[in-house]
Amino acid sequence: MATPKIDMGAPATDGCEPVTAESSWSAAVGQGGGVLRSVQIGALELETGGLLTSVTVAFECWGTLNAAGTNAVLIQHALTGSTHVSRGDSEEDGWWEGLVGPGEVIDTNKYFVLCANMLGGCYGSTGPSSIGDDGVPYGSRFPFVTIRDSVNAEAKMADRLGITSWHAVIGGSMGGARALEWAITFPERVHRCAVVAACAASTAEQIAFAQAQVLAIRQDPNFAGGDYYDDVAPTAGLGLARRIAHITYRSEAEMGQRFGRAAQDGENPVSGKRLPSKPGRSRTERYRVESYLDHQAHKLVGRFDANSYIVITEALMSHDVTRGRGTLKEALYRAQDVEFLVAAVNSDRLYFPAQSEELAAALPGENTVRRIDSPIGHDGFLTEVEAVGNLLKASFFPV
Amino acid sequence: MATPKIDMGAPATDGCEPVTAESSWSAAVGQGGGVLRSVQIGALELETGGLLTSVTVAFECWGTLNAAGTNAVLIQHALTGSTHVSRGDSEEDGWWEGLVGPGEVIDTNKYFVLCANMLGGCYGSTGPSSIGDDGVPYGSRFPFVTIRDSVNAEAKMADRLGITSWHAVIGGSMGGARALEWAITFPERVHRCAVVAACAASTAEQIAFAQAQVLAIRQDPNFAGGDYYDDVAPTAGLGLARRIAHITYRSEAEMGQRFGRAAQDGENPVSGKRLPSKPGRSRTERYRVESYLDHQAHKLVGRFDANSYIVITEALMSHDVTRGRGTLKEALYRAQDVEFLVAAVNSDRLYFPAQSEELAAALPGENTVRRIDSPIGHDGFLTEVEAVGNLLKASFFPV
Repeated sequence: MATPKIDMGAPATDGCEPVTAESSWSAAVGQGGGVLRSVQIGALELETGGLLTSVTVAFECWGTLNAAGTNAVLIQHALTGSTHVSRGDSEEDGWWEGLVGPGEVIDTNKYFVLCANMLGGCYGSTGPSSIGDDGVPYGSRFPFVTIRDSVNAEAKMADRLGITSWHAVIGGSMGGARALEWAITFPERVHRCAVVAACAASTAEQIAFAQAQVLAIRQDPNFAGGDYYDDVAPTAGLGLARRIAHITYRSEAEMGQRFGRAAQDGENPVSGKRLPSKPGRSRTERYRVESYLDHQAHKLVGRFDANSYIVITEALMSHDVTRGRGTLKEALYRAQDVEFLVAAVNSDRLYFPAQSEELAAALPGENTVRRIDSPIGHDGFLTEVEAVGNLLKASFFPV
Repeated sequence: MATPKIDMGAPATDGCEPVTAESSWSAAVGQGGGVLRSVQIGALELETGGLLTSVTVAFECWGTLNAAGTNAVLIQHALTGSTHVSRGDSEEDGWWEGLVGPGEVIDTNKYFVLCANMLGGCYGSTGPSSIGDDGVPYGSRFPFVTIRDSVNAEAKMADRLGITSWHAVIGGSMGGARALEWAITFPERVHRCAVVAACAASTAEQIAFAQAQVLAIRQDPNFAGGDYYDDVAPTAGLGLARRIAHITYRSEAEMGQRFGRAAQDGENPVSGKRLPSKPGRSRTERYRVESYLDHQAHKLVGRFDANSYIVITEALMSHDVTRGRGTLKEALYRAQDVEFLVAAVNSDRLYFPAQSEELAAALPGENTVRRIDSPIGHDGFLTEVEAVGNLLKASFFPV
């Protein structure tokens, strides 16, 4: 195996394109992780005909790859997720904190665990905010990419890193879509595949909610067709997109119990008052649920690029494992030698459990959908780390 | 009874402020209806402290009011609904076509049926597009109004028209909220009340989706704080608000069966092509469900005012029959002498049947929630006119 080009320096969360330096792969891999690394995979031909001439895939990793390159586990992040699955040696908790580490369910004493930023993202992989060959950010010129393009980029990354096959590919939500595409596109390289709170193809409703989110950004006057990097970012549009999305991530019951009709502290939403500083006949004070969604919007806007949000959302809209592969059963039959774990959050109303059932029923062999018991809705795949861990432990990582 | 000021001239759908002329009330009421009329109710003090100095309530009506003023039926429209319940003598179908007319369930040979445009609307009643005392449209100066303000305005309208009590007040969705408020605010004037696909108080999730819609409009640069009447209207924002809302009006299953992942005819949404005329790295072609939502947005933008959309949506957010009235049971006890019909669409995921159950359980006496069997979601209250008619016939309008 050739020594790949790997960068060790960029911090885990800045979202910038890391500078790649020559270094030894084995040296770059410690037990801890929590540092953003990247590998150059060269040119990438896209499923729909375009070409990206020079692609970086950024990732974080934990544990040590064995000599045969067969102890690797790929964890796929969700729509606005980063590579930061686990704290590792860093200060910041990961989004599946507690799942990966020495002695944990995915034991880094045994496994080499990797999470790559998807193509088009803003956590280090080539995306619209990356600088193109001409020294200018792609912006409006970044091409339409699909889930399959991301998987192909990750396969090239695995080639470069000497990962021959994955002990398991695991993902929730959009990460589940990518995990499933991995199993179908490269079944010989995937031994086990966990598809959590995801489905075989984005549905009409998922496309509809996605359209609203993409429009919210495009209609922000600061969006400027995607070429806003020299100017003010379209934060209002991105914030609205996040609000719409976030409602779909939670259950009606959870929002009702948590917020009900309560007013935000010190505010009276049933009031005719106006703030002199604010033009318009505004109802200027908020319900608590509005304040909560404002907060969610604010948090995302501070860490995510609006163009990446569009690119990744449109990739998710394109998700359909059957495209060019016949019926769902025919498409899934390609992965007949892969062991599957299909799981659903029982209160999920974005990726309904029925969609997981449909997937499981069409997979080769017998597959029972495992339930994650949470009242929270779709986000249960993130909040119920212990439940996810227990399912993975029983299926893929027995002690 | 004094002869009220009534206008007979304005067409049913232009949304403009009609000019009021002196005329005889009885002469204005024919069998047919389908013509927008209006009545001046003078000044209106608002629940939250504001004042509208000169308020018009526009309405359509069918049938003839009896001398005692006791054969009247009030039908309340939904969020973007108009007064046009029934075609009557006009050319255009109403939104509950077939329910009202000679020999129909609500038989205009017996009953005088009226539908008023709610306060803040754009179908003839005083709203943000109305001209204020200073000769300029209210725009940003239009005050925050509540459901109760609308009901108070309608009560003044009823006074002016000589309607002593309502045989029934009937509404679906936001119309249901207004119907319920009528029964609680003026129980002595309401004999029967039908609350269809509505609830006792807007929930956290309903508020959340409403916030996104209101923001979509406010963030349109053409909104100009609400003062856009001399310039371009914020149609993009209003269109996005409608798309978000429309998704919540339909069921996931219905959208899936109707559209699935189909592409719009002649378009390929999984394509990297760009239209030269369109800047940005757009996915320029659409899924059929996107085209459908574009069409819904386009239709609404052509008939509705963006400021009215905000005013009415914020009124709906304020909906809470318990405000200032103790517990839900205490609030509803005021209407102990009113006969109720509570109905829910079984696939509704905006006004869940459980919310109708909660209302029915808290009403005085025994109340069973009647189900409207439709796979369509919330909009079933509009599409299943026959089912709604059958429920009304059995409960309120026996032959």
